[in-house]
Amino acid sequence: MHLPQHALPMCALVLAFGCVTSANADTPTSKQILDESTAAEWRTLDPAHTLVMQLAGKHRVVIELAPGWAPEHVANIKTMVEAHYFDHTSVYRVQDNFVAQWGDPDGDNPDKAKPMGKAKATLEPEFTRKSQGDFEFTVLPDGDLYAPEVGFSNSMPAARNRLADKAWLVQCYGMVGVARDVDPESGNGNTLYVPIGQAPRRLDHQLAVVGRVVEGMPWLASLPRGPEPMGVYTDPKQRTAIESVRLASSLPSAEQPKLQVLRSDSTSFNRLVEANRNRQGAFYRFPVGHISICDVPLPVRETPTSK
Amino acid sequence: MHLPQHALPMCALVLAFGCVTSANADTPTSKQILDESTAAEWRTLDPAHTLVMQLAGKHRVVIELAPGWAPEHVANIKTMVEAHYFDHTSVYRVQDNFVAQWGDPDGDNPDKAKPMGKAKATLEPEFTRKSQGDFEFTVLPDGDLYAPEVGFSNSMPAARNRLADKAWLVQCYGMVGVARDVDPESGNGNTLYVPIGQAPRRLDHQLAVVGRVVEGMPWLASLPRGPEPMGVYTDPKQRTAIESVRLASSLPSAEQPKLQVLRSDSTSFNRLVEANRNRQGAFYRFPVGHISICDVPLPVRETPTSK
Repeated sequence: MHLPQHALPMCALVLAFGCVTSANADTPTSKQILDESTAAEWRTLDPAHTLVMQLAGKHRVVIELAPGWAPEHVANIKTMVEAHYFDHTSVYRVQDNFVAQWGDPDGDNPDKAKPMGKAKATLEPEFTRKSQGDFEFTVLPDGDLYAPEVGFSNSMPAARNRLADKAWLVQCYGMVGVARDVDPESGNGNTLYVPIGQAPRRLDHQLAVVGRVVEGMPWLASLPRGPEPMGVYTDPKQRTAIESVRLASSLPSAEQPKLQVLRSDSTSFNRLVEANRNRQGAFYRFPVGHISICDVPLPVRETPTSK
Repeated sequence: MHLPQHALPMCALVLAFGCVTSANADTPTSKQILDESTAAEWRTLDPAHTLVMQLAGKHRVVIELAPGWAPEHVANIKTMVEAHYFDHTSVYRVQDNFVAQWGDPDGDNPDKAKPMGKAKATLEPEFTRKSQGDFEFTVLPDGDLYAPEVGFSNSMPAARNRLADKAWLVQCYGMVGVARDVDPESGNGNTLYVPIGQAPRRLDHQLAVVGRVVEGMPWLASLPRGPEPMGVYTDPKQRTAIESVRLASSLPSAEQPKLQVLRSDSTSFNRLVEANRNRQGAFYRFPVGHISICDVPLPVRETPTSK
């Protein structure tokens, strides 16, 4: 199971806040809800839109791409991945309570930048999509400080402004964005980032979001922080090497991640949101009654081997 | 300067989101605001309420205590610190996107727990204080999903419910809380935690909060994560040793941290909130117009040596 750990309250002999010891029989725990979920409530990752990034130390990071939200950026990233562009690049920036960023550390230096092959150097901004499109948007009714509406789409946190006919993926912990320079068209996907602390919601609909990390966030979030103010390592030796990035579909079957995400339009997901909105049990003295978009756990599990 | 790095936008030759390149002359950057702040807007940490925790590897963590919010817990912690209780304990739990927790890893085991000396084993809950008290509460007008009002008190994030006559410190990244067992009186301060990811607001007013980390968060936030589901290391060798915890006032003057925090009731703090609420400059395509309580930077600086 690769669930966000705090979504699976269990008890241990430690000072265990977050531990739900004795939920009433009629108020299920997150674990009970997931145990009771049906096979149809889980969606198997599409290998054609799943990246497998191998960091030094045999640490695997798996990213689910979101082509519906930034199709040109996702296509460009796939072009680079197929050409092995990211192999032997690195995680070269880790800013505390903000982001880990990876790609070619010399990408901004025309004399040293790694050639991007058939990939495009600039792209039209895909910071939002039309909100009226034909895609799931399961509203989180708790409201939001930053957007008129928030919710989930294909198990990713999303927001929309129907008056403006715009929707976008939210910059929560674990979401993968495309770094860019000041020019809105300067992002091309050769440099990606993931929030590792408090969700930097100020970045919402200011950059393209191309997916989310579904396995391996702890490897990225626990890297040594680079120096102030931006977290870029000053010594190349501090970087964490990226050995390879591959599309799952290009890997031998045995090496493909076998992962499923809980569908955000499922009954079990809705129950899980409620269980987290109003945690029950002896530890919590007050049901909270609210949950914010970036606090909702997004369960991932290994695909069951037997049907 | 020990500012949260993303509060100090500066430019570098990297794909620099967060970089404000060309603020208009009439819209100051965070750096300009801090450069223009007056000496009276900064408060020097009180050595009698400042902890200095030395982690293995000569990594220093400085914690400002908040005796106004949990006086008995703070007093108990000071009693333990004065008896060197925390020396040779460890950071023994790091749960990804949740907390780092330290103290006696055997604290729950009566046969192995470290004696607490004159400190009390249980304390009355101090999860809230009366909201009508005589203390600063500078309201953040942006609202909040979890509390009727949020704001700042003595440069710490706080919330209040005036109908219930209760106020509390908010569980943002970097705040220090007292872990407890299910019994609300079971927290005594021998085990502390700090949020290292998305603010776990569900914990608000469910545990005692005793201060915040003003220096050294990157050391705690970048520690290797322990295994699921709770992040408690299974092998004691994985723990990070705590060499000592001392009150700053007990240290030789040369070893005392010389730090100041920007007063949250100052004009410069108010300007800083606005500069972060509506970031200006070429990078940001839309001023956001909102900021959430845990997104407001809380500046810390070394005390200027010359007046």
